[in-house]
Amino acid sequence: MSVISFRRIKDAIDDVVDYLVYTPENVSIELEKSLNKISGENFSSKVDLPPYPKSTMDGYALRHTDISGASRDNPIPLKLIGSITMPFKKYDLKVGEGECVFIETGCFLPSGTDAVVRIEDTYREGEVVYVMKTLAKYENVSLPGEELKRGDPILKRGIRIKPWHIAALRLHGVSEIEVLNLRVLVVGTGDEFLEGLHIPFTLSLVRQWFIEYGFLKAEEIVVGDNKDEIKRIIRKSLPNYDMIVLCGGTSLGMKDYLAQAIKELSPDVYIHGIALKPGRTTILSAISGKPVIGISGLPVAAYANLELVISEILRRWLGAEPIIKPRVKAILTRRVTTKSGVRALVRVRVYSRKGSYIAEPLLTGGSGSLRSLLLSNGYLVIPEDVEGFEEGEVVEVVIHSWF
Amino acid sequence: MSVISFRRIKDAIDDVVDYLVYTPENVSIELEKSLNKISGENFSSKVDLPPYPKSTMDGYALRHTDISGASRDNPIPLKLIGSITMPFKKYDLKVGEGECVFIETGCFLPSGTDAVVRIEDTYREGEVVYVMKTLAKYENVSLPGEELKRGDPILKRGIRIKPWHIAALRLHGVSEIEVLNLRVLVVGTGDEFLEGLHIPFTLSLVRQWFIEYGFLKAEEIVVGDNKDEIKRIIRKSLPNYDMIVLCGGTSLGMKDYLAQAIKELSPDVYIHGIALKPGRTTILSAISGKPVIGISGLPVAAYANLELVISEILRRWLGAEPIIKPRVKAILTRRVTTKSGVRALVRVRVYSRKGSYIAEPLLTGGSGSLRSLLLSNGYLVIPEDVEGFEEGEVVEVVIHSWF
Repeated sequence: MSVISFRRIKDAIDDVVDYLVYTPENVSIELEKSLNKISGENFSSKVDLPPYPKSTMDGYALRHTDISGASRDNPIPLKLIGSITMPFKKYDLKVGEGECVFIETGCFLPSGTDAVVRIEDTYREGEVVYVMKTLAKYENVSLPGEELKRGDPILKRGIRIKPWHIAALRLHGVSEIEVLNLRVLVVGTGDEFLEGLHIPFTLSLVRQWFIEYGFLKAEEIVVGDNKDEIKRIIRKSLPNYDMIVLCGGTSLGMKDYLAQAIKELSPDVYIHGIALKPGRTTILSAISGKPVIGISGLPVAAYANLELVISEILRRWLGAEPIIKPRVKAILTRRVTTKSGVRALVRVRVYSRKGSYIAEPLLTGGSGSLRSLLLSNGYLVIPEDVEGFEEGEVVEVVIHSWF
Repeated sequence: MSVISFRRIKDAIDDVVDYLVYTPENVSIELEKSLNKISGENFSSKVDLPPYPKSTMDGYALRHTDISGASRDNPIPLKLIGSITMPFKKYDLKVGEGECVFIETGCFLPSGTDAVVRIEDTYREGEVVYVMKTLAKYENVSLPGEELKRGDPILKRGIRIKPWHIAALRLHGVSEIEVLNLRVLVVGTGDEFLEGLHIPFTLSLVRQWFIEYGFLKAEEIVVGDNKDEIKRIIRKSLPNYDMIVLCGGTSLGMKDYLAQAIKELSPDVYIHGIALKPGRTTILSAISGKPVIGISGLPVAAYANLELVISEILRRWLGAEPIIKPRVKAILTRRVTTKSGVRALVRVRVYSRKGSYIAEPLLTGGSGSLRSLLLSNGYLVIPEDVEGFEEGEVVEVVIHSWF
């Protein structure tokens, strides 16, 4: 049986991150399949949008100096010499003094012009257009680069790819994008799974968490409570993954095969036990510069680890943008406590009453309580330096749904 | 040229939703591919977890009445009659008065026992275990249904599927799940796209928004500025999609082919013009009970429509859980205004300074400004009943990233 000391989460993460010297590789994937993946590249705009001055109205393109003084009482006539109706086409038209061209929204201004008068501010007699309004230079005109300028940052390595990034890359004719090729192997340990006595459902929670984070691969394998087999799997798999998460068997009890297996692989750093509730039996280690992490096989303890420990390791290791989650201030219906020095995750059910948010802690069932995850729509964190929150106190709650 | 009146957004949505009588169908998909899709079914737990009383410690299973009065000074001996080390296995062991069984964490209690004493609170001499602590009934025991109870709600139609839902269904041996089979066709209109003069990049923004929302299909097609062709596409496609979004050509200008096309298809309801900035030329209609919506081809106007109009239509039509976005209170660096009665979306860049959030409005480039979407990390909404917000005012901002 190992003797465990519980490290503060921040200290434990500080220590581990120093040894994560492996840098995940980039991989090129289809642009339209990159939503919410983590960018592996920097990309700046190589184009100006619009490329040329563009009309934002239906009207007449003209020289604004030609119509100074124009008004309803003093309409100024211009000679209509052509018509531009195809957006984004360069017309071979030159507009001289006293002349104008009919132009539709989205079309490039012909050379010689610097403003567009709206149709509503004109009337027409044959080939003569009467303008009833003065215009500033570039009025009703979108100037080159106004919508997107050459050199504008579009992507930075580490950001989460959103619909507007995909749109901006498409504008560049790009159809593939470099993303971080993040691959995690989730190893479930337990003879009961191998024997078919129980279903390792926590593995799905863990894998799906990584997929939501932006991992391209989150695969799983189940092994028995067998130290040598666990060592073999880690050694064999590590070259093909960026990180390994072992799930189950981190307990303080007899079955610490997992702790022994990791220790015998001579990790660069090894921490067993962190001041997290639930989830204190967590193992943090680095092998070949990659994170090898042991977490509980119980769903709430696994979730607390993912949200409060692993997400922070990923942020610092990868420089990757975390998923930002909504937070609300809510009134606590019941006292919640933790031991001093321990950070606790408490599942809560948040609801709205008379314009305030109310947070009801779901304390039943301990770290195995799948139902507390299903019934909760968020959680609160009790930090190390407070012992808890009182009934009626206003606390900050992380929300993951309204249902 | 159509005459447009600008309806209040809420009134326009109220009117349209009444006519959305089509109900999207369910489709069965792989469970592990259902993350963030919209559930099409209700599902309640059919199992108790644990199914039998389960030890939460390594120790000895016993009858708590046998050791009343036990202490370090008064250890009470029990006869060790067996050992239980395989979790989730039913052992054929019956424990009588004065007897105990060695048990590991996660294993089911043998019949006759009702508590588990931790190894640390015992010592052993041969086949006799001395217990040095009294226990309450069920101490260190997880009772049937404590982690998940038969009848506990797992899924409701309309919720967004999260990792814990997938884990809970896997526990039931389920490998497929019914989700809403949401399919949108995004139609880009514009001769400039057909001629290859410009790239319809806004279509990617719109499609990816729907994919993030939980649509299974978000396909696109590009047509020219041709009323009959647009009509043909809508008529032909509507049976194969749940909704059609036409993008571009909703302007007040000459090219209102799109408005004409929709009108000539005799929609059940037709609204052209809503009090949204940018995005006022929006067309909301219902054909065959499905939404047929025309939005601007300019990215900011399209985005304002998606966030403020289409998401609300989907919520009310489908009863689907919206994506909840983080909101923060931030101090405005500049005055922002809108016409009374108009709801406005203003892109902002939010940053943290001296412990406060600061929101800087990005006002450049109008509704075509892709760069304002790229540079912003959130937006604020000016509601209809205020004319704007002052410099220095604290406003609520929706955030989509911290970068």
